[in-house]
Amino acid sequence: METERYVQARQAQPGRTGYFAGRTVADFGRAMRTGTVTAVGAVEGALASIAELDADLGAFVTVAPEYALAAARRADAELAAGVDRGPLHGIPVGIKDIIEVEGLPTTMGSAHFADHVSTVDAECVRRLRTAGAVIVGKTTTHEFAYGPFGDRSANGPSRNPHDPARMSGGSSGGSAVAVAAGMVPVALGTDTGGSVRIPAALCGVAGFKPAHGVIPVDGVFPLAPTLDDVGVLARTADDCRVAYRVLADLPAEPGGPGVDLRRIGWVRPDALFETDHDIERLARAALSPVGAEVEEVELPEAAGMSETYFAIQGSEAYAEHADRVAADAALFDPEVLDRLKLAAETAGWRYVRALRDRGRLQNEMSALLSRYDVLALPTTPLVAPPLGARTTEINGTAVGVRPAMLSMTSPFNVFGLPALSVPVGMVGSLPAGLQLVTSPGREDFLFAVAEKVSAGGH
Amino acid sequence: METERYVQARQAQPGRTGYFAGRTVADFGRAMRTGTVTAVGAVEGALASIAELDADLGAFVTVAPEYALAAARRADAELAAGVDRGPLHGIPVGIKDIIEVEGLPTTMGSAHFADHVSTVDAECVRRLRTAGAVIVGKTTTHEFAYGPFGDRSANGPSRNPHDPARMSGGSSGGSAVAVAAGMVPVALGTDTGGSVRIPAALCGVAGFKPAHGVIPVDGVFPLAPTLDDVGVLARTADDCRVAYRVLADLPAEPGGPGVDLRRIGWVRPDALFETDHDIERLARAALSPVGAEVEEVELPEAAGMSETYFAIQGSEAYAEHADRVAADAALFDPEVLDRLKLAAETAGWRYVRALRDRGRLQNEMSALLSRYDVLALPTTPLVAPPLGARTTEINGTAVGVRPAMLSMTSPFNVFGLPALSVPVGMVGSLPAGLQLVTSPGREDFLFAVAEKVSAGGH
Repeated sequence: METERYVQARQAQPGRTGYFAGRTVADFGRAMRTGTVTAVGAVEGALASIAELDADLGAFVTVAPEYALAAARRADAELAAGVDRGPLHGIPVGIKDIIEVEGLPTTMGSAHFADHVSTVDAECVRRLRTAGAVIVGKTTTHEFAYGPFGDRSANGPSRNPHDPARMSGGSSGGSAVAVAAGMVPVALGTDTGGSVRIPAALCGVAGFKPAHGVIPVDGVFPLAPTLDDVGVLARTADDCRVAYRVLADLPAEPGGPGVDLRRIGWVRPDALFETDHDIERLARAALSPVGAEVEEVELPEAAGMSETYFAIQGSEAYAEHADRVAADAALFDPEVLDRLKLAAETAGWRYVRALRDRGRLQNEMSALLSRYDVLALPTTPLVAPPLGARTTEINGTAVGVRPAMLSMTSPFNVFGLPALSVPVGMVGSLPAGLQLVTSPGREDFLFAVAEKVSAGGH
Repeated sequence: METERYVQARQAQPGRTGYFAGRTVADFGRAMRTGTVTAVGAVEGALASIAELDADLGAFVTVAPEYALAAARRADAELAAGVDRGPLHGIPVGIKDIIEVEGLPTTMGSAHFADHVSTVDAECVRRLRTAGAVIVGKTTTHEFAYGPFGDRSANGPSRNPHDPARMSGGSSGGSAVAVAAGMVPVALGTDTGGSVRIPAALCGVAGFKPAHGVIPVDGVFPLAPTLDDVGVLARTADDCRVAYRVLADLPAEPGGPGVDLRRIGWVRPDALFETDHDIERLARAALSPVGAEVEEVELPEAAGMSETYFAIQGSEAYAEHADRVAADAALFDPEVLDRLKLAAETAGWRYVRALRDRGRLQNEMSALLSRYDVLALPTTPLVAPPLGARTTEINGTAVGVRPAMLSMTSPFNVFGLPALSVPVGMVGSLPAGLQLVTSPGREDFLFAVAEKVSAGGH
């Protein structure tokens, strides 16, 4: 009923979005330094937006007004005293609820952790705080980050702001929704097979996952440690870049020469999965204004990629959860439990082979990337399906939603490469995403392409 | 019948052993440099010993007289010309038949490789050749090195020289037998869970496995790559040391100060497996003349060690053999095939956990080894069982031969530590071994202890 009301409200007033809609981190930073806005004002804007919108969207599990306002007051006092911590100083952020934030509950989206309150900060959170960011709350995660939908967690689904009857995508669904709805300008997610990029694409925001291992995962609940990375969701690619540099402990602005963008490899998506023709067209067309040569390329062993991914992900995920399944199976969401039981059946020798295949594929990708500055392909082959949907159609072909959603993002977790999803327009009333991939250390190429990408007439 | 004849012959003439019985590599090196013996003479001695003894012992799969004599002639010519390649110059060696030796058949003990002739040298073989060693042939391996018995291979079992109706131990059984019977002074083996140390103990010779990864395994057929190491069998620990330094590409004689031996940790074997009381007594007593303080210690999580070992070994072994099982199962020895099929059932998540446990255990062992120069325990909890035996009794308790044999050696493959087995006397007419273990880089401590160990009155 709430959903219906929200849909009706949006139909009546389609522009209704939160305080941060249309503002970049840089915009806000300038305003704060010229005194037209304060960190406390920003938190109040975030809190008001959450209060207004979130009952219908489910982006936040925990909102921490006093906690956030106290941090914002410190940020304002520092700035008044001449202490400027850089571009994230005073910026409100949301943190995915599998990441520990000292003093706040961290539920992992699971009844197993219903009463867990964090006693330490994850290292990525500590870095955000050191950079002056202000944590306003914890965002909804698919239970234990184990699902690309965002519609199964102990505290309910996160909902797509473009149509709350549809999925946000996941598992970092709440972070994508919070940014897309303008509740916060930046939010942390995690990405094991696409959990940052998928909800970014489905909600129409930017999402960046770094090269594997670049941002520490201490204090982040593991899904599959050799694939897991902390990532960032924001309204624009440039805001992702700003947060990424903080999270990776890099200087605020890159040194060295500018980016000389010459060649883009277009990965034909149908080698990976049946792809909605409109999404493919939008994503491909978005590259036209970039001004680089675009060539078609194929990923190595595209056909076997998903087997490699699932062998690694399943083995590592069940290793994390085996004791919990044995002791308290009933506390899992039934669908997540079924997925875990299937993961438990992955053979050890298949895991060994998958690790070996990964090593070989990483070498082949290095060779491919030596010939291109950036690879590009759709982020997902479909737009946001309805909440709870597990099968759907793409171009009239029946497909499973989970393999579809993971098909274009998970290869880059296997390869361990940095990848960015940016919005490229709408298919009907739902957003589509373009994914950009490059070599570790060449992340600036991603942001340079993103800056020139056409948003499909939006 | 051959076996009976050999047993009778040995009973009539118990001293009947090969040309190299009772001689060390150093003895032979001195004799060669004073002109009282030549490399060609040494090869002739090896060939004569093999011809005399090996029909009954099965140490060699391939003997290469012309190949060996040609190399020996080169070694003699070099020495005559003043080119001295060091302590292995002109020394005949045997090479386990899972290690590639250019120009010779390498069968892996398997019908799958019945016709395989190596076109390259394994790196360890290349190092031996560069040091002047002379390869006389390939030694029997348990099929694909997958078994600690030495009694299952496409070319028949290797037999214990102390009682040819009994196992040599394995999988490097042929190398242990060749050395024990005096056919060659030194032979290469490989050790994944004890495959050098077990046959060394059961045949009454010395066997050394290095710290994991110290000797390259290029050109060595894998069993379980994260556990596999090339090792060496020789009559004495000092001969192992000489060959080890060549194989690890170290200078012939260690530099730095001598070894100051203070504390030995005695690992109570019954925490690992039921242990023959006589073996335990011999091994413990052998430490008395060493003159170091001996304290009882326990290995971390001794009870779970074998599960960790088998999860790693099984997953990795089946990853090597899955395609072969699918294509040509009938070419496997039935027992090895059964073992592979069981290995295939190891769950991926158990492998993931075993790797994690291994990392933790390695740290705990580092801490333990910081308090002791050397750890000591029996190499095996039993003496050589009859060929084909898969169950036996230890102190009146029924046990499986495979888990018994691997129980005291495989932990040190999991830990990745250097380990040496040396003979400590006889239980009845069969040899028992003492295992010595230390930290990587402190191998000299093993050899220093071995030099002082009592051989139990032999």
